[in-house]
Amino acid sequence: MNTNERRVVVAVDESEESMHALSWCLNNLFSPDTNNTLVLLYVKPPLPVHSSFDAAGYIFSNDVIKAVEKYASESVNSVMNRAEAVYRNFQNNIHVKRVVGCGDAKDVICGTVEKLEADTLVMGSHGYGFIKRALLGSVSDYCAKHVKCPVVIVKHPEEN
Amino acid sequence: MNTNERRVVVAVDESEESMHALSWCLNNLFSPDTNNTLVLLYVKPPLPVHSSFDAAGYIFSNDVIKAVEKYASESVNSVMNRAEAVYRNFQNNIHVKRVVGCGDAKDVICGTVEKLEADTLVMGSHGYGFIKRALLGSVSDYCAKHVKCPVVIVKHPEEN
Repeated sequence: MNTNERRVVVAVDESEESMHALSWCLNNLFSPDTNNTLVLLYVKPPLPVHSSFDAAGYIFSNDVIKAVEKYASESVNSVMNRAEAVYRNFQNNIHVKRVVGCGDAKDVICGTVEKLEADTLVMGSHGYGFIKRALLGSVSDYCAKHVKCPVVIVKHPEEN
Repeated sequence: MNTNERRVVVAVDESEESMHALSWCLNNLFSPDTNNTLVLLYVKPPLPVHSSFDAAGYIFSNDVIKAVEKYASESVNSVMNRAEAVYRNFQNNIHVKRVVGCGDAKDVICGTVEKLEADTLVMGSHGYGFIKRALLGSVSDYCAKHVKCPVVIVKHPEEN
């Protein structure tokens, strides 16, 4: 391990938990005497595929896709702005990169960690919105198994 | 979170991976300006239960139990000595506690983390010796799901 440089990927999404994970990372992993790179990774879900033979979707499919794309872009901005509000108060020597991926969250997260040769991955134990309970932990479980670097799984204190 | 005190439990066992997890912890979580408590947790497996009606075990059962106990004690010392060799070179302000539990590793680890109100749990993705592959990740998976604090799962670099 290069102790003079630390590259940490934090997977962020709409959840409070992921902001808590970011806060934990800033409080615990970054020290002033280290050259820290914080990679904020947001994963947009893949666009839905609309069949042109679908009675309702035929005319509006382009509009629907544009609306979904617009919503996804707004989500990216919203999440990144919230993340900035968390990290801008930290005085440590942090270089921030924003990465936006698209696809299955677990695959994109693992792929990004590997591509960037991250030292650590930090994430909530999240399961994405309304299907959260059904999928609780699945993304973090998968990443913990498949990435090579250490993985930190942070839970929101109030959800315990 | 109290930023002036940090209590980190590191689950150690016979594996190189757990020593790597300890090393990661010392390199990444402990800073000189923090009051750090490192809790080294070793979990002895529960003693086997020998039936006095067992033909082969009847005479030797006490000897067998003593031998198992002796082996377990030697394992504790061996692991704790190896851990000490890892942490004694670190000059940071670290207070070390050694805790030895007995029972099912995942229950003992989760119970200890809760009892000590640890800030973080650090462990390998280990699966204990010869059944490692069959159970890969099961202990760390369980702990990541059940403890309230952040969990760091560290893999041995050479096992990736």
